[in-house]
Amino acid sequence: MSGNSLGRIFTVTTFGESHGRALGCVVDGCPPGMELSEADIQTDLNRRRPGRNRHTTQRDEPDQVKILSGIFENKTTGTPIGLLVENMDQRSKDYGDIKDKFRPGHADYAYQQKYGIRDYRGGGRSSARETTMRVAAGAIAKKYLKERLNIEVRGYLSQLGPIELDAKDLSTVDDNAFFCADPSRIDDLDKFMDELREQGDSIGAKITVIVSNMPSGLGEPVFDKLEADIAHGLMSINAVKGVELGAGFASIVQRGSEHRDEMSAEGFSKNDAGGTLGGISSGQDLLVSLALKPTSSVSVPGKTIDKKGKDTEIVTQGRHDPCVGLRATPIAEAMVALVIMDHYLRNRAQNADVSSETPGI
Amino acid sequence: MSGNSLGRIFTVTTFGESHGRALGCVVDGCPPGMELSEADIQTDLNRRRPGRNRHTTQRDEPDQVKILSGIFENKTTGTPIGLLVENMDQRSKDYGDIKDKFRPGHADYAYQQKYGIRDYRGGGRSSARETTMRVAAGAIAKKYLKERLNIEVRGYLSQLGPIELDAKDLSTVDDNAFFCADPSRIDDLDKFMDELREQGDSIGAKITVIVSNMPSGLGEPVFDKLEADIAHGLMSINAVKGVELGAGFASIVQRGSEHRDEMSAEGFSKNDAGGTLGGISSGQDLLVSLALKPTSSVSVPGKTIDKKGKDTEIVTQGRHDPCVGLRATPIAEAMVALVIMDHYLRNRAQNADVSSETPGI
Amino acid sequence: MSGNSLGRIFTVTTFGESHGRALGCVVDGCPPGMELSEADIQTDLNRRRPGRNRHTTQRDEPDQVKILSGIFENKTTGTPIGLLVENMDQRSKDYGDIKDKFRPGHADYAYQQKYGIRDYRGGGRSSARETTMRVAAGAIAKKYLKERLNIEVRGYLSQLGPIELDAKDLSTVDDNAFFCADPSRIDDLDKFMDELREQGDSIGAKITVIVSNMPSGLGEPVFDKLEADIAHGLMSINAVKGVELGAGFASIVQRGSEHRDEMSAEGFSKNDAGGTLGGISSGQDLLVSLALKPTSSVSVPGKTIDKKGKDTEIVTQGRHDPCVGLRATPIAEAMVALVIMDHYLRNRAQNADVSSETPGI
Amino acid sequence: MSGNSLGRIFTVTTFGESHGRALGCVVDGCPPGMELSEADIQTDLNRRRPGRNRHTTQRDEPDQVKILSGIFENKTTGTPIGLLVENMDQRSKDYGDIKDKFRPGHADYAYQQKYGIRDYRGGGRSSARETTMRVAAGAIAKKYLKERLNIEVRGYLSQLGPIELDAKDLSTVDDNAFFCADPSRIDDLDKFMDELREQGDSIGAKITVIVSNMPSGLGEPVFDKLEADIAHGLMSINAVKGVELGAGFASIVQRGSEHRDEMSAEGFSKNDAGGTLGGISSGQDLLVSLALKPTSSVSVPGKTIDKKGKDTEIVTQGRHDPCVGLRATPIAEAMVALVIMDHYLRNRAQNADVSSETPGI
Repeated sequence: MSGNSLGRIFTVTTFGESHGRALGCVVDGCPPGMELSEADIQTDLNRRRPGRNRHTTQRDEPDQVKILSGIFENKTTGTPIGLLVENMDQRSKDYGDIKDKFRPGHADYAYQQKYGIRDYRGGGRSSARETTMRVAAGAIAKKYLKERLNIEVRGYLSQLGPIELDAKDLSTVDDNAFFCADPSRIDDLDKFMDELREQGDSIGAKITVIVSNMPSGLGEPVFDKLEADIAHGLMSINAVKGVELGAGFASIVQRGSEHRDEMSAEGFSKNDAGGTLGGISSGQDLLVSLALKPTSSVSVPGKTIDKKGKDTEIVTQGRHDPCVGLRATPIAEAMVALVIMDHYLRNRAQNADVSSETPGI
Repeated sequence: MSGNSLGRIFTVTTFGESHGRALGCVVDGCPPGMELSEADIQTDLNRRRPGRNRHTTQRDEPDQVKILSGIFENKTTGTPIGLLVENMDQRSKDYGDIKDKFRPGHADYAYQQKYGIRDYRGGGRSSARETTMRVAAGAIAKKYLKERLNIEVRGYLSQLGPIELDAKDLSTVDDNAFFCADPSRIDDLDKFMDELREQGDSIGAKITVIVSNMPSGLGEPVFDKLEADIAHGLMSINAVKGVELGAGFASIVQRGSEHRDEMSAEGFSKNDAGGTLGGISSGQDLLVSLALKPTSSVSVPGKTIDKKGKDTEIVTQGRHDPCVGLRATPIAEAMVALVIMDHYLRNRAQNADVSSETPGI
Repeated sequence: MSGNSLGRIFTVTTFGESHGRALGCVVDGCPPGMELSEADIQTDLNRRRPGRNRHTTQRDEPDQVKILSGIFENKTTGTPIGLLVENMDQRSKDYGDIKDKFRPGHADYAYQQKYGIRDYRGGGRSSARETTMRVAAGAIAKKYLKERLNIEVRGYLSQLGPIELDAKDLSTVDDNAFFCADPSRIDDLDKFMDELREQGDSIGAKITVIVSNMPSGLGEPVFDKLEADIAHGLMSINAVKGVELGAGFASIVQRGSEHRDEMSAEGFSKNDAGGTLGGISSGQDLLVSLALKPTSSVSVPGKTIDKKGKDTEIVTQGRHDPCVGLRATPIAEAMVALVIMDHYLRNRAQNADVSSETPGI
Repeated sequence: MSGNSLGRIFTVTTFGESHGRALGCVVDGCPPGMELSEADIQTDLNRRRPGRNRHTTQRDEPDQVKILSGIFENKTTGTPIGLLVENMDQRSKDYGDIKDKFRPGHADYAYQQKYGIRDYRGGGRSSARETTMRVAAGAIAKKYLKERLNIEVRGYLSQLGPIELDAKDLSTVDDNAFFCADPSRIDDLDKFMDELREQGDSIGAKITVIVSNMPSGLGEPVFDKLEADIAHGLMSINAVKGVELGAGFASIVQRGSEHRDEMSAEGFSKNDAGGTLGGISSGQDLLVSLALKPTSSVSVPGKTIDKKGKDTEIVTQGRHDPCVGLRATPIAEAMVALVIMDHYLRNRAQNADVSSETPGI
């Protein structure tokens, strides 16, 4: 209810603050009998981890995950899986201005007004460190989807500020620090980021996630359409300002005769729908994009107020990502995987014994 | 779980098919003591109702709502409010091709694969008639928000195909058939729609919703950020392909020094955030836009398959909206109102006695 | 959240007051493809219906159910099933004392304090008429459980005041007005009730429900143990003051060597557990009993207070059941069936592809 | 959904196995601004802790709790509170018979059939160690209820096998190892338990919980009646076979004129209802009792089957409680406190601004 849980059957409940003792989560509802080790989860945590390259925050967190429960003889047992990552590099005990002033564009002011109290150290619960556990839980979902259903959830950076990027080769995404699927553009990105850092500013980005080998039938047709739950999951990531499916905002100027994807025994003619019809997966690839705002932690001074409501100015010190979009690909993949996993189990609950006279296309 | 319920405290559960006996819903969790009559709900139902003008479907449904429970002596009692709208104009018993063929771009194929059975009459549960009950429930939420908290939820058509439209005067939105807030553009819209209808085609649209007099503190900071639940609600409307908050997709190319909204004792310098910080309302207006695809029901023939999976062709007959965006404004307002209402009660549950030392700006 | 919904996957949401327009419910999550007609539901409604004999309230309600949605060509489609029963015999518009005084032992005072307003006509939402929709929804669950899984949910009156009754022959339960499974005791019951009615008093009762052909594996082992959800369901019925499973309260004086049910390849030696181990069904019959208090609506005057808090006296007029236990058997069966149905789907969601190397006993 | 979470607003999600690394939980939805330290939680954990006296299991667990999140400067912040207790004394790596045989009366067989795999070490998730986290979470609820609302939740042993025990003096409950409220009976209990242990057998028990200073208005009137949610919570505790409220099963033989509690400006004449009317708290003390079966872990050999389904015999070795009821009082208190806490927030969500013209009695 307080919004730290996600999902209905495959559920994830997270806790932890940026500068607290640890981050953790409970993954409940995982089907039993799947092999699972800490290494399976660590792979994705390492992809999200800060300090991988010069364009991200220099906070050094190993993000080493411990499985505390739910596994026996290397297999899931069906009981809740407790995960823990201890915080190692909280650094300075001097939080300077952020104790008494609200950083513009940050959650500080809103937390203060909602709770009357806030853990200002590194942003507390509103820190991007919170996403660690999304990625950890998502790794479990991704493993199940891949092993049991051959579903693959893959994301890439599709735009960095003004630089638009194609999905030239998804297999190269993990070879660079940007999760860029076009190796020919890496130098442009490096150069852009270096200039940005010199200016002490930050930039927005766009991430695209593609899910291949989707089964049809996932998604509940009214309020919990598959795309509605995916939009919820993605929009819940820090800094995300927009989500679109298939043709997305471009469909505003389309005509119906152009937008609709025709069908034949060989499949769909194209994929403007983005993988769902009526909120239910059609068997096409799922195509979803998200817009990330530039982080507000920039070294340019900004006007704000202090805890008493008085006008003041602040410069955000410390270690920050100049483009939160750079580390967001594994997070976006995780959220999409968690939603699909949950919907797979939801659909199975109601429709496990359905058979359709129509062959899948 | 099967997705026909929305909300955690102020909950809405809907039922009903396009050509069934009736549409209905149960609104549970409404605070007691609010005056409520059928007329209060009818006003918004009339705004959504088909047949209001020549640009929408000619199906003639009075959409007369009955309150079945939860009201005593014209006041809400705190018990569930049952609402019912009977279907009057189901028309033809000849459903022609849609019984045995799947309309491309429609939910037909996905329902068949999910459930193995489908009510093909008028699209059954996947019909836009399903949104009737969203609007009815939303009217209750809007009334509470306005009367008790002075919160106003107002939408308008911000783009029709290539025609972009400004919010010149929100008070004129209900004076025209388009929910257009710029009276000077009505003729352009009429002309555009007339040409489109002659071509037998359809067009996409964009709706923007503005919520004014927002209190701060609504939204749960991790998975159930206010914008995440709003994105869920809006993306669950038929034909919606994208949702954005504040600067939205435009924030991809922004710099942090540009995007962040500075604060002073007088308020925020601008509103690129769109009304939330860290997933929690900041007290700024909420600004959200949604993209609607063109309906796939066009008179241009399209390739598809039949129930046996064989290639065939279909022409969608019948009464259809050439732009689903034209009637979507009240629906979008309803979804936003329902989410805000629910979050108002959610926040009150946990934080009813919070006081902040910081004055609201 | 306001408690008018039950279940996680197979969910039931009810509405309606005793003297309002109608009672209704939405059954969501029902698997598609099951044949379902109004007659299937009416059978159980008729068993619960008032006015069946001289020992129950003389209010005459046909309780004719209408299916409003979710069925197509006589089969469930997987979309929500809307059910409606109109109130016909609300009778007198003179509510006399109950408008301004609180009946002792009734919900009147508690509703007033919780909501500040109450529909006093016939008890409003707190009337036993509310259970109509439990029975209607339960009939759908019972049909699925019987047809697909051969599970049978059968209840009987196991005690009426001081008269203890055995399950001599469950097939005779519907042959008498008491749901008594021992035909030899009907005269005793008739005589007891006649005397009671002359005295204008009421009496408590005990109902026992037996579920046969239970599969193993239903129930979630920690908070949502099968017996925990059954206890919740049964304790939510008006007038229920206690629930027990298997040996129940008698197990307080048992020794472990006596209580535990030994196992062999032929099955369990006996059934003191009542059908679950660790919260999960073991494959044994489920055995559950509930205690119902005597209704507080008696013609003996009682001390109470009025709306201003002043001392006064009240005599409950009108048509009331002298033993609410007499009509409670179908309600108890319905609640048990709803919980089992939901847990069947819940278990299938997580564990659909589990196989155990141990054969069922 | 897999049942490891409890509550709607004040939610508790637990994880951990008897012989795993740790037990943990996440308490979400706690109102901000309450002082909370590990010591506050430890007090109740120590009351539940094994090894307190010669009548309980000799497993030596310090059950030292760590708060991992959700607290800042000794106050709750409104973000999720992560709690952890590491397992120290898992002891023997030789699990003997329980690996391949199912202990009768235990969860072993049911887990095997549900999940196809089970962590047999010490019962895994089905161990009574699971209740540690119920007590930890309950301590937070109890602190809030006491400090903010003056509500006190106190339990005591009301029956041990054949020995019935009165609530002579609730202040003495923590002075003895039995949670007995009648100091004059301690010797009888000691003697009874000593004899039982010599026989290698176990015994059932009854616990009663009294909640004083209850506000009126808590509980949702239909499915989530206060007593329904309490029954759910208590029935979810290992070994509980029955729950009753107020007069409970004794109300079966009562007459209505006897059972109903009359009201006057001075209050209720007595408390057979047990604290609720129509599922809503009336302001009377809440009175609830639960029956606990004797543990099945006895040194008397029992017939059972092995993993292949073959007949065999087993003697339960190891460290076990001869009466699980002896340590159940803090657990029962915790469950009642958690349900009341949740309902306090639920009621506040919908009815925060209700005022009744009737003064509380």
